[in-house]
Amino acid sequence: MKKYVYRFGGGAAEGGAEMKMLLGGKGANLAEMANLGIPVPPGFTISTDVCAHYYTHGGYPKSLTKEVKAAVRSVEEITGRKFGKAGNPLLLSVRSGAPVSMPGMMDTVLNLGLNDETVVGLTAVSGNERFAWDSYRRFVQMYGDVVLGMKPEDKHEEDPFEVIIHKVKKARKIVLDTELELDDLKLLVKEFKAAIKKRTGHDFPTDPEEQLWGAINAVFGSWMNDRAISYRKLNDIDENLGTAVNVQAMVFGNSGDNSATGVAFTRDAATGEKRFYGEYLINAQGEDVVAGTRTPNPIAKLEKEMPKVYAQLTKIYKKLEKHYRDMQDIEFTVEDGRLWMLQTRSGKRTGFAAIKIAVDMVEEKLIKKEEAIKRVPPSALEQVLRPVFDTKDHDQARKEGRYLCRGLNAGPGAASGIIAFHAEDAVALKKEGKNVILVRIETSPEDIAGMAAAEGILTARGGMTSHAAVVARQMGKTCVAGCGELEIDYKTAQMTVAGKVLKAGDFISLNGTTGGVFMGEIKTIPSEITRVLVDRKLKPEKSEIFQAYDKLMGWADEIRQLKVRTNADQPNQAREAIAFGAQGIGLCRTEHMFFGENKINHMRAMILSEDEAERRKHLKKLLPIQRRDFEGIFKAMNGYPVTVRTLDPPLHEFVPHEKEEIEAVAAEMGVKPADIVKKVEELHEMNPMLGHRGCRLGISFPEITEMQARAIFEAAVNVAKKGTPVHPEIMIPLVGHVRELQLQERIVRRVADEVIGKSGLDIPYLVGTMIEIPRAALTADYVAQVAEFFSFGTNDLTQTTLGLSRDDAGKILAEYLDLDIYPTDPFATIDRGGVGRLMKIAVEDGRKARPGIKLGICGEHGGDPNSIQFCHELGLDYVSCSPYRVPIARLVAAQSTLEDRKAKK
Amino acid sequence: MKKYVYRFGGGAAEGGAEMKMLLGGKGANLAEMANLGIPVPPGFTISTDVCAHYYTHGGYPKSLTKEVKAAVRSVEEITGRKFGKAGNPLLLSVRSGAPVSMPGMMDTVLNLGLNDETVVGLTAVSGNERFAWDSYRRFVQMYGDVVLGMKPEDKHEEDPFEVIIHKVKKARKIVLDTELELDDLKLLVKEFKAAIKKRTGHDFPTDPEEQLWGAINAVFGSWMNDRAISYRKLNDIDENLGTAVNVQAMVFGNSGDNSATGVAFTRDAATGEKRFYGEYLINAQGEDVVAGTRTPNPIAKLEKEMPKVYAQLTKIYKKLEKHYRDMQDIEFTVEDGRLWMLQTRSGKRTGFAAIKIAVDMVEEKLIKKEEAIKRVPPSALEQVLRPVFDTKDHDQARKEGRYLCRGLNAGPGAASGIIAFHAEDAVALKKEGKNVILVRIETSPEDIAGMAAAEGILTARGGMTSHAAVVARQMGKTCVAGCGELEIDYKTAQMTVAGKVLKAGDFISLNGTTGGVFMGEIKTIPSEITRVLVDRKLKPEKSEIFQAYDKLMGWADEIRQLKVRTNADQPNQAREAIAFGAQGIGLCRTEHMFFGENKINHMRAMILSEDEAERRKHLKKLLPIQRRDFEGIFKAMNGYPVTVRTLDPPLHEFVPHEKEEIEAVAAEMGVKPADIVKKVEELHEMNPMLGHRGCRLGISFPEITEMQARAIFEAAVNVAKKGTPVHPEIMIPLVGHVRELQLQERIVRRVADEVIGKSGLDIPYLVGTMIEIPRAALTADYVAQVAEFFSFGTNDLTQTTLGLSRDDAGKILAEYLDLDIYPTDPFATIDRGGVGRLMKIAVEDGRKARPGIKLGICGEHGGDPNSIQFCHELGLDYVSCSPYRVPIARLVAAQSTLEDRKAKK
Repeated sequence: MKKYVYRFGGGAAEGGAEMKMLLGGKGANLAEMANLGIPVPPGFTISTDVCAHYYTHGGYPKSLTKEVKAAVRSVEEITGRKFGKAGNPLLLSVRSGAPVSMPGMMDTVLNLGLNDETVVGLTAVSGNERFAWDSYRRFVQMYGDVVLGMKPEDKHEEDPFEVIIHKVKKARKIVLDTELELDDLKLLVKEFKAAIKKRTGHDFPTDPEEQLWGAINAVFGSWMNDRAISYRKLNDIDENLGTAVNVQAMVFGNSGDNSATGVAFTRDAATGEKRFYGEYLINAQGEDVVAGTRTPNPIAKLEKEMPKVYAQLTKIYKKLEKHYRDMQDIEFTVEDGRLWMLQTRSGKRTGFAAIKIAVDMVEEKLIKKEEAIKRVPPSALEQVLRPVFDTKDHDQARKEGRYLCRGLNAGPGAASGIIAFHAEDAVALKKEGKNVILVRIETSPEDIAGMAAAEGILTARGGMTSHAAVVARQMGKTCVAGCGELEIDYKTAQMTVAGKVLKAGDFISLNGTTGGVFMGEIKTIPSEITRVLVDRKLKPEKSEIFQAYDKLMGWADEIRQLKVRTNADQPNQAREAIAFGAQGIGLCRTEHMFFGENKINHMRAMILSEDEAERRKHLKKLLPIQRRDFEGIFKAMNGYPVTVRTLDPPLHEFVPHEKEEIEAVAAEMGVKPADIVKKVEELHEMNPMLGHRGCRLGISFPEITEMQARAIFEAAVNVAKKGTPVHPEIMIPLVGHVRELQLQERIVRRVADEVIGKSGLDIPYLVGTMIEIPRAALTADYVAQVAEFFSFGTNDLTQTTLGLSRDDAGKILAEYLDLDIYPTDPFATIDRGGVGRLMKIAVEDGRKARPGIKLGICGEHGGDPNSIQFCHELGLDYVSCSPYRVPIARLVAAQSTLEDRKAKK
Repeated sequence: MKKYVYRFGGGAAEGGAEMKMLLGGKGANLAEMANLGIPVPPGFTISTDVCAHYYTHGGYPKSLTKEVKAAVRSVEEITGRKFGKAGNPLLLSVRSGAPVSMPGMMDTVLNLGLNDETVVGLTAVSGNERFAWDSYRRFVQMYGDVVLGMKPEDKHEEDPFEVIIHKVKKARKIVLDTELELDDLKLLVKEFKAAIKKRTGHDFPTDPEEQLWGAINAVFGSWMNDRAISYRKLNDIDENLGTAVNVQAMVFGNSGDNSATGVAFTRDAATGEKRFYGEYLINAQGEDVVAGTRTPNPIAKLEKEMPKVYAQLTKIYKKLEKHYRDMQDIEFTVEDGRLWMLQTRSGKRTGFAAIKIAVDMVEEKLIKKEEAIKRVPPSALEQVLRPVFDTKDHDQARKEGRYLCRGLNAGPGAASGIIAFHAEDAVALKKEGKNVILVRIETSPEDIAGMAAAEGILTARGGMTSHAAVVARQMGKTCVAGCGELEIDYKTAQMTVAGKVLKAGDFISLNGTTGGVFMGEIKTIPSEITRVLVDRKLKPEKSEIFQAYDKLMGWADEIRQLKVRTNADQPNQAREAIAFGAQGIGLCRTEHMFFGENKINHMRAMILSEDEAERRKHLKKLLPIQRRDFEGIFKAMNGYPVTVRTLDPPLHEFVPHEKEEIEAVAAEMGVKPADIVKKVEELHEMNPMLGHRGCRLGISFPEITEMQARAIFEAAVNVAKKGTPVHPEIMIPLVGHVRELQLQERIVRRVADEVIGKSGLDIPYLVGTMIEIPRAALTADYVAQVAEFFSFGTNDLTQTTLGLSRDDAGKILAEYLDLDIYPTDPFATIDRGGVGRLMKIAVEDGRKARPGIKLGICGEHGGDPNSIQFCHELGLDYVSCSPYRVPIARLVAAQSTLEDRKAKK
């Protein structure tokens, strides 16, 4: 017969930590602790199989009643107490426990087994009648709420039990629950029962057996309550997992001054420091620690108050950490001088702590490097790389009372700027050189441009997986989300919080690492790691987090196969990326070099030229400018490969639209402004994304490609002559047919042969292509006959594969994510089914045609963990991402390799 | 040892018709005739292998000299003449002959073997000194030109020999070549030789052996002349085929009044009528028939003039037609009463003749039905389906001298309209309801919209494979191309031809079947087939071409596997298509139904609505309009399946832009015009092709899909109630993710169940999707789980797969076709490498997921022969095209099946 109930306690257990799927996290860990000889209140776990049975058959397996009865008997034996007997009664807790933690989402019943007889027994045993009746009062209240449905009847009503308590307190003229006296408690029990009878038509159950089954039903039933369902949806938890039910003997931290209850972490969850860290309260229950009505003591004080217990606790926490090989979050209760462990689990921690603990544990030989790599989520790394508040300025703000409120710490780092309530405003202000904080009730894909322009994002609604939170993390933006206290009024362009009114344009500051929001400006400074690596203003040995980061990255680099490059258009970006570990430039956008006062008019004149001769005249002026830019980049990259993309965007993006701009260009070209206007109109396209851009420009105007190739190779020669090795990789964009690549490749090679030949140097270079329109992927076997490398331009590839322009996708994406059409934003995370399949075709066919072909990705997906993992699976040679995401890519690349190894085992 | 020379003549030959690749078309047919016992002047063919050897080794195989010498000897034996001997000299012709006909592209030398001695022999044998010297004069001139390079030295110069002739004629005060007397001819020979000596520094070769090798060299050399190279490129002929060289004894049709030369067709090449048809000249050479200086006699007259020869010729032509089982184009010469056949080949013919001859030959049991199907090119069918001039009006125009000139008959049919010199003008005039003829120097893809708007296209430059010709045929437009006499001046917007000036806006008429161009308007009437099938104004038995067409189509329908549907949005189109053999509607665009005065304002109001309630109000007004349209179509289709596509284009295509339109909509909606303007601006998109359109509209506004589904099913019920079966197939456009389809499918099925359920009828219907963006094809295995059919929307699929917007592709395509990046316009013929591969993936994966899935195509490629063939190869169930292309699709579908059978053999 199938076993449904697993007992634990008395130094042994039928289950264990590895049985999480069957017993849930809590049940498995309780069993594990019991097996380790750690004192846990005895009890049993009803498995998740019963939950499945409950929902598929609408009831329990036949054998369950008998199994539960026997398990209760077993608890009675271990404790020496009797369930439902007046003399020395056994009280039980009934708690949920799913395989995946869903904190607070499901129901719990404590003190189960109390009735008018057993309360007398509890009094006798504890010698504390008030305690016994307070327990009884709490039980009736909790059972009434959870099992009997005594909830407010509509949202305007108060909790029915709190109404009664309030009435009694008012009559007795007291304020705190602790001021309630024995008679008050007895009265409350009576009135609670009467209220239950009135509402439900039934007496409160006095039979402990009946109470127990009522509680078990309620816990299984809570798997499908609204909160649990939406939590699972948000966190992508499988509904079929089900919950287990843990029934356990009650122990009481509130049974006198020789009792206590506490929570602790085996290491510091904020910094990762190796110190036992927690708090406790004498004569209290767990909820008292959380409620904050009494101030708990730091755990160190327990050593003085209960030296024996503290010694035992120390032994236990060390045992647990060593056993689980991870920092533990533990709960304990001392009942009458006896220590009971109620829970242990891996503790939640900040990014700083995650890195520090993982690295420390390797050095302590608790775990291996590989395990350390696996344990650090990419978000942890992101957190430690983000800017922070300048401490002095921050303290000053606190002192001045500029703290406003706290939301979810959705995007780590610190940011300060002026408030913009609309994405367009954020973009406009950013253009004026201002730092902006985008403040929205919630964000949608329409706000993407504004989010990109903002230093930080603040929202009133939405959780850790809301649009704002997910996109902010992906973009590396500071974000405080779901700050419910904000009242935002778009119409008046102001918001109210903590009694203060802030308007658009006012300064505000966000601490995305803690969730804190402050009025006014607070200076930010780069992260410690940035200060060590990039600014070199902090000595490595002075920064613990840098040292941990550095070790971790070193291990990641040992493990990973995927190389990491950066997208950089300027020498300073290139230097920054190298400090973060970039192994080359995967995308240098030449067109970005054209912006800026001095360059843009030459560029415009070139575009608007009537014929090749005129175009060449203006190109000649652009040549030295481009050459200088490339020299800077080649120097900075010091021998690492640099992929330079030839001119890509539609020409009309460059042309002047403002009157003054038009006049300036007309003067430069010696023509009438009206001629410029006409030419600009001619360049207009219906669908510029699918228009005259990419290699199509170089094919129409081969002299542009020629000039760019010349600038690249002349720069390469100049830099190489001074002894710095140079490895240019020339990338032709928007190729759809191998002939396009071929025509452009010939120009590049002709110029290269000429320039390099004349120099007498040996400068190895590659010519390759972006794979960014479907046809290139579908004909990769042909394209690879010319291309020495492919670089996936997944931004454009996503647009064409999905038939969706990013510029116009705002509203559509918002709707599509809402309706679950797309599981994630396909512009943030690679759409594996469509775009991914094309990539796979291109990789396979490209390698068949040219076995050694170099493969990389330079779309923005190159910095997204899920997409990096996919690139690893595809077997690409490298990913390329923005400089600050390079460390994240290094880590994820290593994690991907470890995933592989696991899969191969 | 390899054999290079194949002899023929004297009633036998070493080669035969099946050796075309080795002997070229002419050589193989000469051998074949010889084998059939038909008199051909004896000779020999130097094989194409020698050509290959010539170009790979730069010279001839060693054994060739010996083989040629022996073959000349053999000709001497058969003719009893001696090559290079003064007494009864053998003269030779040396001609090219490639495996694929390249008329006029390569060189020929006639009368070879003449010199100062043999000319005396020729005089003696022919008894005609003038003839002998004229032959000699022609030989020196031809040899000088072809072998010795006596061409004009630059393009301003005249032919050097013509200069001499002109001088002599002027001195003698005569005009025609025939007026030259013996002494003049002798003088010319002398002067020609002197000119050759002067220019080349060498004497004219007198040794016949040397002459022969010179001519052979020249013919092989001409394989690579510029004309031949560009002809092969235009006609996609493999350069490696090479040419053969035919050396043959000369026979003279100009050796006296008992001699003659002629050309003939075994059937009428214009109408296909079974009658011997041709012309001849007494005492003339072939070039005299072509030159038109003398008017040839109709072939029937030969019966009287040379009854014996005529009897023999009749026997021969019948034998040849029966032998080759096709209408033959023959050339013959009578020398001194003796008949020689110089050439036979399948005759070129009009579309009318192609159909009639193919059908007649089946009835004569000369060929099988399958062969008849294979022999009719799609263009033939197109020709017989196009409109023609009203005969009376046409005669009147001729009488009034309105004939202007003749160009190439590039797109059959007749068209009349006003001249537009620019594509945009053509589009604008068409919108005003005018018939337009687009007149261009030449067209480029930029002109596509104008070509589509025009009734006919006239160009001054370009051949039968020029852009104008190819696209016009693809579009089914009347086209006269390469009309060199036109002088078009875009600046003054006028053209000059035949001394007349025509301006933009003037009427002009084109006969695309003959190439004739006329001033003024000439009424056009539909083709005979249309008059029989659609207008029912002509009785079938009165139209021979209809009867042939009808039989041919019947056979095609027996053979083909691919079904043919039509794209039709209106009942009259549907009826027309059915008359042409459509088996259903493959694409009914519901949005086309919205245009028109009464409907557009409801539509606009719906689009500009603020909320769902308002939208529903306007949709309610649209419902009865749509329902009525569908009723009309369902009735017309009489049980054939009708694929209805839900709303597809970006909404902003519908919105008003003109002031009056805006005011009308504002009035309809009861809002201010300014509100409308604002809303219109909001709907603007950067890349509408990749924006809010297709199913995205139905997902944002499910009520639109709901209304359309209701209109479809209510119409279906109404029509079915009256006893007409209805098979609606609802097609959701622009699906990229199966979830999109699923959401729309649910709406359609809900409405269908409700409407059909209430009716109590059984109306089978399908729900499926367009495959028009790459992601749909790449995830076809998922999409097919919901879709009951796929219809490839290859217009859009081409845009996204190639990353090229059709609206913006004009200039790019022109350049890309020029540079050979695209072999053909990918919007006209499916790009098999890219788009085709996606289609293949979708077909395979779709069938795996849903084995019985119905597959079709509804893009414009559905009417393109090459693309239809590809659809057959993919195993689609049907193609859908515009009504007038339905017969073409039926024919090509049958041809594709026959191709398959051939491949399987």
